[in-house]
Amino acid sequence: MEYAIGADIGGTKIQIAAVDREGRVVDRHLLPTEAQLGPDQVMGKLLSGIGLILSRMPANARITGIGVGSAGQIDFASGTVAFAGDQLPGWTGTPIKARVEERFGLPTYVDNDVNVVAVAERLYGAGLGLDSFLCVALGTGIGGAIVEAGRIVRGAQGCAGELGHVSVDFNGPRCSNCGNNGCVELYASGSGIARLGSELIDAAKELPAWRADSREIAQAWLQGDPQAAQVMGIAIRALAAAIAGYIHMCNPQAVIVGGGVSETGSVFLDELDREVRGRTSPSVRSAYRLLPAYVGNDAGVIGAAAQVWLYGGNI
Amino acid sequence: MEYAIGADIGGTKIQIAAVDREGRVVDRHLLPTEAQLGPDQVMGKLLSGIGLILSRMPANARITGIGVGSAGQIDFASGTVAFAGDQLPGWTGTPIKARVEERFGLPTYVDNDVNVVAVAERLYGAGLGLDSFLCVALGTGIGGAIVEAGRIVRGAQGCAGELGHVSVDFNGPRCSNCGNNGCVELYASGSGIARLGSELIDAAKELPAWRADSREIAQAWLQGDPQAAQVMGIAIRALAAAIAGYIHMCNPQAVIVGGGVSETGSVFLDELDREVRGRTSPSVRSAYRLLPAYVGNDAGVIGAAAQVWLYGGNI
Repeated sequence: MEYAIGADIGGTKIQIAAVDREGRVVDRHLLPTEAQLGPDQVMGKLLSGIGLILSRMPANARITGIGVGSAGQIDFASGTVAFAGDQLPGWTGTPIKARVEERFGLPTYVDNDVNVVAVAERLYGAGLGLDSFLCVALGTGIGGAIVEAGRIVRGAQGCAGELGHVSVDFNGPRCSNCGNNGCVELYASGSGIARLGSELIDAAKELPAWRADSREIAQAWLQGDPQAAQVMGIAIRALAAAIAGYIHMCNPQAVIVGGGVSETGSVFLDELDREVRGRTSPSVRSAYRLLPAYVGNDAGVIGAAAQVWLYGGNI
Repeated sequence: MEYAIGADIGGTKIQIAAVDREGRVVDRHLLPTEAQLGPDQVMGKLLSGIGLILSRMPANARITGIGVGSAGQIDFASGTVAFAGDQLPGWTGTPIKARVEERFGLPTYVDNDVNVVAVAERLYGAGLGLDSFLCVALGTGIGGAIVEAGRIVRGAQGCAGELGHVSVDFNGPRCSNCGNNGCVELYASGSGIARLGSELIDAAKELPAWRADSREIAQAWLQGDPQAAQVMGIAIRALAAAIAGYIHMCNPQAVIVGGGVSETGSVFLDELDREVRGRTSPSVRSAYRLLPAYVGNDAGVIGAAAQVWLYGGNI
């Protein structure tokens, strides 16, 4: 049997798995990133974790390659970290591909964590059979990936797909990450919804029944709380305006939304879809579908591993 | 000598030219579109114009193919008009490629008018040697084209690149073209600047020295008029917010801006560049340059013709 190793490096945990060609996880290992210890320690954990999984594989298993997905901006061609923020201090400049290939002698592919999720969606999930789609990853911030003509849009340095840093209010609050005003991440990410909740609390005559936390606000909204509905209404309209812009730019077959409040279920996605449809030209609207992310919690390691099949020319 | 025929179909005029491999126009013919006469008349004009240019070519000239750029949204694969608005009534659905190939028996390539300008910029202009860049065409509206990894981003139906319909204010005025709120076209296109000028006139205690016309406003701004500076400040900030979003999405090597107020010269582009740089992450900002469109007035026919070299596999 043939397998690929997938590794998903986030700010809090590193997940490593052995994955087969059908996208099934056959073994896994989870360890804390402890990013504050610095890049050498993180790299050490990655290498020893991969080594552990490899040592546990049956003798007749064939390991075709290693795929890594990492938080931050990754230069795919060199497999080096182009930029990583406070989530992974000192990670910028780390030559992940070179270090992994040097240690294990297996072809290695490195991309950012949202691009590898797009690979998983395309091979096994909501993007199956689609040549042009976007992934919108709602989390503390908003990440993204763009697939066009069957290929991930990487741009000049592998930094494309920063969908959270599209402005939906050029007079809005300043984004401390990029300097633009009114980035959609300031309204529809977990921290954005919490920010809107805080603003409402500061201005409200009557304090709401929830704290300024995106999951609490989303739950209260689903239960009919009018103040939560006010916050979620702003978040949904801002996100819909941004997605409508992506659609006019990229004319995709689908926008796949996952993470954060999208996991509260179909009410959120239905509302979002209705808003997006009202904000798009008929010519691009007809091609588009809003889809929930499909691959689930293992999307990071499955997508990381699937790079081996996708780019290794064996699929 | 080898030539391609290029045709540029706009709402008011059709321009047809014979163009050599170096992008030089060697013969041209200009005729009014008279779009109100309907699609059959427009197609008749296109075919007879191409026929005229072909009949004037020297006997030893080799014509390699025909390229057409048309206003509206074009399905590149079939060479059919996917959608055309009021500018070309009834033009939607016209099988341009099939009709031209049927008449002249030459390989024909059809794309929208901004995508062919991107082809011209890439082969002969500001995009020379660049694999990832965007073209922003300021006019009555705002058109666009996206080049990624050396290829034009087309999306599901050839409608990608509608850069004017990216929202920069999700609570802004509703766009009658697409239904979104606060499309950048409502602020920084010719009609958008005129709209902002009208708003200022309606609210002003002292009437400005200019009429609500984008060229008058831009000229007054260059001469130091403070009310014009107010309007142009809004237009530039809105456009910069949108361009910063494009940059975070596509991580391009360049954004090439042409048409409309960008033709007032370097003051506009310098101000715009300064605003864009303040609104982008260091990682994507370092790759990017703001460039004025280079190919000029003939970009439409030169780019239309250049499709023959680009897609014919001879370049």
